[in-house]
Amino acid sequence: MKFTVNRQQFIKKLNDVSRAISTKTTIPILTGLKLVVTDREIIFTGSDTDISIETTLRGDDDATELTVEEPGQIVLSARFFSEIVKRLPEATMTITVKEGFQANITSGAAAFTINGLDANGYPHLPEIDGTDEVNLAGDVFRDIINTTVIAVSNQESRPILTGVHFTLNGDQFMAVATDSHRLSQRKVTLPEAAAETHDVIIPGKSLVELSRMINEDSQDVKMRLSENQVLFMLGDTAFYSRLLEGNYPDTSRLIPSESETTMEIPAPSLLSAIERASLLSHESRNNVVKLTLKANEHLATIFGNSPDVGAVEENLSVVTLAGNDLEISFNPDYLKDALRSFGQSQIKLSFTSALRPFTLVPSEDGDNFIQLITPVRTF
Amino acid sequence: MKFTVNRQQFIKKLNDVSRAISTKTTIPILTGLKLVVTDREIIFTGSDTDISIETTLRGDDDATELTVEEPGQIVLSARFFSEIVKRLPEATMTITVKEGFQANITSGAAAFTINGLDANGYPHLPEIDGTDEVNLAGDVFRDIINTTVIAVSNQESRPILTGVHFTLNGDQFMAVATDSHRLSQRKVTLPEAAAETHDVIIPGKSLVELSRMINEDSQDVKMRLSENQVLFMLGDTAFYSRLLEGNYPDTSRLIPSESETTMEIPAPSLLSAIERASLLSHESRNNVVKLTLKANEHLATIFGNSPDVGAVEENLSVVTLAGNDLEISFNPDYLKDALRSFGQSQIKLSFTSALRPFTLVPSEDGDNFIQLITPVRTF
Repeated sequence: MKFTVNRQQFIKKLNDVSRAISTKTTIPILTGLKLVVTDREIIFTGSDTDISIETTLRGDDDATELTVEEPGQIVLSARFFSEIVKRLPEATMTITVKEGFQANITSGAAAFTINGLDANGYPHLPEIDGTDEVNLAGDVFRDIINTTVIAVSNQESRPILTGVHFTLNGDQFMAVATDSHRLSQRKVTLPEAAAETHDVIIPGKSLVELSRMINEDSQDVKMRLSENQVLFMLGDTAFYSRLLEGNYPDTSRLIPSESETTMEIPAPSLLSAIERASLLSHESRNNVVKLTLKANEHLATIFGNSPDVGAVEENLSVVTLAGNDLEISFNPDYLKDALRSFGQSQIKLSFTSALRPFTLVPSEDGDNFIQLITPVRTF
Repeated sequence: MKFTVNRQQFIKKLNDVSRAISTKTTIPILTGLKLVVTDREIIFTGSDTDISIETTLRGDDDATELTVEEPGQIVLSARFFSEIVKRLPEATMTITVKEGFQANITSGAAAFTINGLDANGYPHLPEIDGTDEVNLAGDVFRDIINTTVIAVSNQESRPILTGVHFTLNGDQFMAVATDSHRLSQRKVTLPEAAAETHDVIIPGKSLVELSRMINEDSQDVKMRLSENQVLFMLGDTAFYSRLLEGNYPDTSRLIPSESETTMEIPAPSLLSAIERASLLSHESRNNVVKLTLKANEHLATIFGNSPDVGAVEENLSVVTLAGNDLEISFNPDYLKDALRSFGQSQIKLSFTSALRPFTLVPSEDGDNFIQLITPVRTF
């Protein structure tokens, strides 16, 4: 095996597959990066068994400056090989593997020899037998991930809640996540209806990595499903994730359909006030802030308190406030996560009572995006 | 006590004294920030007993927007108070202390009440009785600190070596540090001769904090000494540090006066090569790289090696190479630190033998700045 390549182009691909490579794996070869060099391209593979990423550097793209003298394959320590490649002195580098599994890496006057492993010992990627392909606009999909994944559980005691539940029915695509204290749900209407219905739970960790790979230029993401795997295609990159097995709880009945008190406020303004109140709640044992609503006086006040440190009180600049008076307490960190997902929008909060979950929706579109938070009993 | 002030101006002063405040102190009041409010200014104090910083926010500077309604003093939890002040909604804030030691902080609609402590319980700052004042240009002094402090020891077994040794004799100002594996020495000729001679050891940690406070606009730093304390004045800020007690070893005899082999090379080019070689040495137990010099062949080669991972070899682009052939091994991290202190300069390395210390000096000024590194025996 021998090839010369532009170092920056190579590093870009290396970084992509490195997302899937863990140094903590119990399978030693998976700490490695697999390189398969053909006459005209290099295929990079990384995997931690939960996630696998495969990407291709193409010789027909002139920027890659790829010239292959001899095809071949090798597995090289990902961490170590990346550090070397990033520190080489010249714009291009040459990698040669002769007998054994020793790789020679040269660039300018620097010559590294590093020990590799037989690529034949590298696990095979999952096979995706499904043929139904769903197309999603990259920026929309990334937004769906980022606004729902905040609500997944990080407790392994109920593994099913560590994933986001996706359902696809005709042109209706829905994502929902809950850790049983809060819930986030997004609905999107796809431009084209899917041929089959789908119902899958994708691990939150996989989705976080996937969303980081979706570029600002928002290329389309193609999704294909098999029984226990999902494959996302992003241009020349394939992203595989295992699916979580089991039945996701029925979340539709958790979302209240009526409310007694409503409040409208710009999300950033409420976020700043909650951040201030949580400075104090974080110092107390039960991390709770209190909100009192008095519609007649048009007064919404947030309270934070820590016996050791002190207290904070702030009147919110609400746009509208209507319905019954209410005093409700909750974990401010849940509300902060939820508020960040609304960006600069104005939002509407709907409350039923002090012990029932309350909801947040964008004022302009209350049907397709909802965040729900369960209050905390303080009496 | 009651005053209103521009929040950003206040935060700047807060950040300055916060450098001296540790959350790990065993004296509870020292986790606090002391504020003394007079009719026309606020004096901020922070201390961890090793370092103390005092700075003044002046009402006669219009940018501070300071209006004092009632003078007074208080100690407030530094960490917590900083977080609050940074998150307040408006450009100004008002702080009120009524009876007891509770402080009221208001800005816009946000109102915090936090518990403080009696400022009378705060330790007094050291008294500096010396009257001899040394003036140093800020940028020069910062450079002296940053290039010598790299060589201080972080082993408490020989506390004296955790400091930088400063001597002042007439107009000759010298700083030297060594951890017994390497040494860094700077000499500067002052524009004015000092009246007294001085010989002090300042803790490396104090100097690191001090150098961070010397701004790019390189104001003068005034230094005053007493028996066990040093005071640096930077504009409106006073920086106190304790001195280390004891006799610093005589380092002058460590610096070789002759050499058998010399090499000249741009510092950045040698630094890159050493960084590459250390990628491998870091993976092996004894973190050593080898340099071979063959003047007749104009060949200087650096080798790094790790039995598990692999090896690297690189021919250096030397400018000059003269004298005996040599093979020498050393800790690359010491050489990296030393090389960084030379910036973009071309440097001259002088070697005596494989087991004797070698030196690095700028090619243009070999007398006033020297780095010395002790090699490692590998046979």
